[in-house]
Amino acid sequence: MIKFEEKTTQTEEIFTGKVINLRVDDVLLPNGKTSKREIIKHPGAVAVIAITPDEKIVFVEQYRKALEKSIIEIPAGKMETGEKPDVTALRELEEETGYTTEQLTYVTSFYTSPGFADEIIYIYEAENLKQLHISKALDEDEFVELMELSLDEAIQMVNEQRIHDVKTVYAIQYLQLKGMK
Amino acid sequence: MIKFEEKTTQTEEIFTGKVINLRVDDVLLPNGKTSKREIIKHPGAVAVIAITPDEKIVFVEQYRKALEKSIIEIPAGKMETGEKPDVTALRELEEETGYTTEQLTYVTSFYTSPGFADEIIYIYEAENLKQLHISKALDEDEFVELMELSLDEAIQMVNEQRIHDVKTVYAIQYLQLKGMK
Repeated sequence: MIKFEEKTTQTEEIFTGKVINLRVDDVLLPNGKTSKREIIKHPGAVAVIAITPDEKIVFVEQYRKALEKSIIEIPAGKMETGEKPDVTALRELEEETGYTTEQLTYVTSFYTSPGFADEIIYIYEAENLKQLHISKALDEDEFVELMELSLDEAIQMVNEQRIHDVKTVYAIQYLQLKGMK
Repeated sequence: MIKFEEKTTQTEEIFTGKVINLRVDDVLLPNGKTSKREIIKHPGAVAVIAITPDEKIVFVEQYRKALEKSIIEIPAGKMETGEKPDVTALRELEEETGYTTEQLTYVTSFYTSPGFADEIIYIYEAENLKQLHISKALDEDEFVELMELSLDEAIQMVNEQRIHDVKTVYAIQYLQLKGMK
């Protein structure tokens, strides 16, 4: 689908970072006018809807510098260069929660902020979790705390807006629609 | 909630744009080590779950430069400085679709990309839509095409991954859980 395509007439690379790159494109609009587009390039991310044998959903609480607070999310992380999303899913699940699984299923993928970023998140579901070790942040600069909640508890936290991360809200609605108790 | 707080020791402002700003913070981690955080500041956005009198959901198709393609989304837009989200909701709804409503309800809000951005999206539901004019992009650099789908048609497009914008996927789940036919 390429309706209303905006052709790039010039690109300025502003920043190349560890996680994101920023560039500004001059674009030619369908009406012949010009505009500028500020664009974040992101390597893509994976998030995991992880269900314990006793039917609890696994969450992690993590400080998010962009928000200057800790928030509750499903386990997630960005893809390393050349890494396939199912590999990222198992790696992040183990790093952040200590769990692994042999039953990993692709659920869907979506763009998070198409107005300014190309970030895509691949969502996986992990069932029959096995605990490899106690949760610890294996990434040297990442600190997370594990939390396991029933679906009812999670729904309540969404309703109270104590969970307000979009991939996590998606995950809880997904489990509701799937008929999880 | 301030678990695992990361204290800023230095901030470098990299870019100030029309839509986003970028800065890099040096942070002191809970274990005493240091790291860098790349942070996008965004003014916040609003998206509208808009339902026509004949029970169709209103979507717009729009070219997204960050993705280099057109995607299907619910009507949405970023908040202007000092604008309240319900005002943004009505403004964007009218600009992008030609509809307005006297029945606008706040649904929820969530962060879209907390790993690198502070963007928050406020979600509203608009019922009893009234058509003010034929859809046209009032923003001088925005071009959108209107699309009205039943919930079943929308669900099928999510399943086929022809809709894969997260706020739009959320909206469709929300209507399913609400019992819309």
